[in-house]
Amino acid sequence: MQRVTVIERFSKTFRDNPSFLSCSLFSLSGLVAYSEAGKSNDNSNAGELVGANNRKKKVVVLGTGWAGASFLKNLKDPSYDIQVISPRNYFAFTPLLPSVTCGTVESRSVVEPIRNIIRKKYAEAYYWEAECIKIDPENKKVYCRSNLSINGNGKEEFAVDYDYLVIATGARVNTFNIPGVEENTFFLKEVEDAQKIRRTVIDCFEKASLPTLSDEERKRLLHFVIVGGGPTGVEFAAQLHDFVNEDIVRLYPKVKDLVKITLLEATDHILNMFDKRITAFAEEKFHRDGIDVKTGSMVVKVGEKEISTKDVKRGEITSMPYGMAVWSTGIGTRPVIMEFMKHIGQGNRRVLATDEWLRVEGQENVYALGDCATINQRKVMEDIAAIFQKADKDNSGTLTVKEFQEVLNDICERYPQVELYLKNKKMSNLVDLLKESKGNGVKESIEVDIEEFKSALSQVDTDMKNLPATAQVASQQGVYLAKCFNRMEECEKNPEGPLRFRGEGRHRFRPFSLNACSRYRHLGQFAPLGGEQTAAQLPGDWVSIGHSSQWLWYSVYASKQVSWRTRALVVSDWVRRFIFGRDSSQI
Amino acid sequence: MQRVTVIERFSKTFRDNPSFLSCSLFSLSGLVAYSEAGKSNDNSNAGELVGANNRKKKVVVLGTGWAGASFLKNLKDPSYDIQVISPRNYFAFTPLLPSVTCGTVESRSVVEPIRNIIRKKYAEAYYWEAECIKIDPENKKVYCRSNLSINGNGKEEFAVDYDYLVIATGARVNTFNIPGVEENTFFLKEVEDAQKIRRTVIDCFEKASLPTLSDEERKRLLHFVIVGGGPTGVEFAAQLHDFVNEDIVRLYPKVKDLVKITLLEATDHILNMFDKRITAFAEEKFHRDGIDVKTGSMVVKVGEKEISTKDVKRGEITSMPYGMAVWSTGIGTRPVIMEFMKHIGQGNRRVLATDEWLRVEGQENVYALGDCATINQRKVMEDIAAIFQKADKDNSGTLTVKEFQEVLNDICERYPQVELYLKNKKMSNLVDLLKESKGNGVKESIEVDIEEFKSALSQVDTDMKNLPATAQVASQQGVYLAKCFNRMEECEKNPEGPLRFRGEGRHRFRPFSLNACSRYRHLGQFAPLGGEQTAAQLPGDWVSIGHSSQWLWYSVYASKQVSWRTRALVVSDWVRRFIFGRDSSQI
Repeated sequence: MQRVTVIERFSKTFRDNPSFLSCSLFSLSGLVAYSEAGKSNDNSNAGELVGANNRKKKVVVLGTGWAGASFLKNLKDPSYDIQVISPRNYFAFTPLLPSVTCGTVESRSVVEPIRNIIRKKYAEAYYWEAECIKIDPENKKVYCRSNLSINGNGKEEFAVDYDYLVIATGARVNTFNIPGVEENTFFLKEVEDAQKIRRTVIDCFEKASLPTLSDEERKRLLHFVIVGGGPTGVEFAAQLHDFVNEDIVRLYPKVKDLVKITLLEATDHILNMFDKRITAFAEEKFHRDGIDVKTGSMVVKVGEKEISTKDVKRGEITSMPYGMAVWSTGIGTRPVIMEFMKHIGQGNRRVLATDEWLRVEGQENVYALGDCATINQRKVMEDIAAIFQKADKDNSGTLTVKEFQEVLNDICERYPQVELYLKNKKMSNLVDLLKESKGNGVKESIEVDIEEFKSALSQVDTDMKNLPATAQVASQQGVYLAKCFNRMEECEKNPEGPLRFRGEGRHRFRPFSLNACSRYRHLGQFAPLGGEQTAAQLPGDWVSIGHSSQWLWYSVYASKQVSWRTRALVVSDWVRRFIFGRDSSQI
Repeated sequence: MQRVTVIERFSKTFRDNPSFLSCSLFSLSGLVAYSEAGKSNDNSNAGELVGANNRKKKVVVLGTGWAGASFLKNLKDPSYDIQVISPRNYFAFTPLLPSVTCGTVESRSVVEPIRNIIRKKYAEAYYWEAECIKIDPENKKVYCRSNLSINGNGKEEFAVDYDYLVIATGARVNTFNIPGVEENTFFLKEVEDAQKIRRTVIDCFEKASLPTLSDEERKRLLHFVIVGGGPTGVEFAAQLHDFVNEDIVRLYPKVKDLVKITLLEATDHILNMFDKRITAFAEEKFHRDGIDVKTGSMVVKVGEKEISTKDVKRGEITSMPYGMAVWSTGIGTRPVIMEFMKHIGQGNRRVLATDEWLRVEGQENVYALGDCATINQRKVMEDIAAIFQKADKDNSGTLTVKEFQEVLNDICERYPQVELYLKNKKMSNLVDLLKESKGNGVKESIEVDIEEFKSALSQVDTDMKNLPATAQVASQQGVYLAKCFNRMEECEKNPEGPLRFRGEGRHRFRPFSLNACSRYRHLGQFAPLGGEQTAAQLPGDWVSIGHSSQWLWYSVYASKQVSWRTRALVVSDWVRRFIFGRDSSQI
């Protein structure tokens, strides 16, 4: 009896003080990782709710991916009534999905129940497991359908009212309408996808081992094709290669020499969003490993047993037999978002357009973030007249350098492309730009008129880039929006954003956008290449390739886990893998 | 680079010397468990094969459950060519399935790839992932069909020749042809079943939490019915109760009061194969826990939303609405075995009958073990004349006590029911039986004739019992048969079994049967009752109930794992559960 009580107390200590675990865990695994122990603890007096229910604003969040989960995790204002709607009752740490496909990490280790996340909130929060099927912005309603069909239950439909709607439904896989993709390839977006791939890899090996097959058929079954040379496709190819060579060959000795992995990429290089050194290293390593990288190869049709590709340069179409194909090429818009876009007049766009504060353009109190939206950064040239007028305080028709300097920060904050442009031109501030356009002899006293101002700024909009559709961006948008929501009232009274050039006063919040002066901080990107080697592109164009980056990868991914539970699970999965290898049962 | 090399070496050390891990693991978990470290290591010079391939006997094993896996694990004679056929490429530690249903243990932790088991053998061994669809004993062939259907591949069929056939296909769930059971209830026999149950429990909670449902509907969805009060049903009920009360209530606070668990049992008591003290304790604990135990309740129909039961005593039929039902009542024979039984003239039996050496009756070189077979213990009275004749060495027509004593051990070994009978009668040996039948004044010199001999032994066959269909029996049968196979040639020359009463010489091997003088050792049985309490019935009718038995349960189940890998995984799952609780994502 006594023994159990000790254990119970011990276990309770851990649950209540997850940070307690950190030392033991990380000293065990030998990882250097920064911790969020402080953060996860300061919600302890949750449940303190605002009494007057009728005053509460209803916030409806669609989706429990990176954007939705990080919004929910950071929302701390108790004055909201929060309702989360998603067909998935958990958050998945998607960058580890390629690891799940080969059993380096278990699927359960990369998920955290969304109810665990919202339970810790100050605010009142509900979760409904359902899919949003229609957004009705006029009546401020979303219509939902439950996907659960338990004995004798139909698919329930219901409507939910909102005051603020946060759309974070993510994207779907883009098949580019290529015939056969939907039916014959595997995607790698959800945890279930990774589980299916894992089972199918083993199935291919089992099938190829059967006694009756021809050698040709065995070869076909063990030909794994990955379509798309982005980070996901490359990591999956590397993981599969390691899985086969480190673990599977011992169990399937008869067929090990028949395995072939092919990576198809339509452009000239794999990992083309990375530095050239990384691309070259990856291509060289894959070549050494025997992974066949076919660049300039566009898939045109996926049959049941053959995949047809077109050589981009020569136009030739060739077919090759395959056993399993994984499709990892790009993202598309979900039907419900497409419908909503048509409804609000964005039907001709690819994804939902928001302004720099993540508000859906033309909509009130509807926010969109993550892969389902892009920020439509306003151009300086669209507002050039308004900027000039605002800056020209004495209405003289000309702008002195002093007048200009007063609005300089606001311009840089409102139009971050300006700073990016200056950085690329190696100028320290906007005054340099004016000086350049007027010639070098300019003094502080000089004045510019509207035309000169326009010509000085004419080039700043050229380098505008959209944020990539990555977990990093979605997660930071979630944090940003949650902070805005937390300080909604406060910032209403004391706006902290840049000057409104086309209106009065200031914007409530600083905008979310790409570069240094704003909210998005690019923390670098990893491309694991197998064999305990990783390529890392870090901020400041710093490139690191090899075993040391793999350790950096381990520690960053461990530290970025959403909870102490998943962190411990992922680390212990890595330890398990080191000791026992990966499992090859069809589970 | 250096660091990785160290890790690689470290990991290799562990893989090669799994026993190395034992100290760290068990000191970590604080379990007292006996280890099999020595055993698992002595296969190290595997691969030493007999040169002449044509001399090798082909052993075909059907099934990778307890019986098949323990047979394969213990088969060490290199002179066989082994082929394993099963639709499941892994062995599952089934006693932990109820734990898998609620996430106390992960599904992957209770499985071990069968290829890992056979890879370590001296003998050459192949595994085919296929289902046996027909056994042809005349031509010594089994026909198989692959269940894998990968893009464009049909279901391959092929035939395999055998010299020895080992049937260990296990049993299927028995629905007793009750309408609706197949369609509407969940079974708990395979790992996939446990995973489905886990998802459905969470689905029921998610569905019941939806905003539009009536309270009645919510109650229905959260009514979990378990049919069958055996160890599996009882353990699942206990696990579900713990899962709900320790983990789920925190996440679904709105519906926690609506949960109801009902356990239906057709007989008068649950756990009726256990000691009465255990039954009483379990019923009382479940009553305290709020689990509704309905004994004397036979299910007659399972509808989509309602389950109908008949009161065994009063004959009344009542219905109750339910959300999820788990069927765990008994086992039936697989169609392929049924077919085979008809073919060999056992069509009127329930399961395959074997003799005491696990050989299928009337078949040469076909063995059956585990849940698909029972041992048809030969009765003494069937052989009484032969026994008398064999014992009567001088053919005097009477048996002296001395003559009788010479065959005593052989009788006890060949007919274990004799020893059981003597034990129950508290007699020390058979001579006492003779003395009893002749009256008390008998001396050593006395003689009995055939009629007196018959009457003395007339009662010994009354207490014969079949072995239960448990993992323990199947596993011990596997070990027994493997040892027979290992010593086939040796025992052909020097038979070690009892005297053949109806033939010449001795039996090759000692028979496998129920009691003390034979191969089956009953090691006791556990019934986990939740709340870290377990009832254990140990050999010698020793009963232990409570927290201490739970620790015994932990250590026995850890030590009984099939490999060091699964042992480490299961123990670390338990540790995870203590620290973080069970996960409630739908994965």
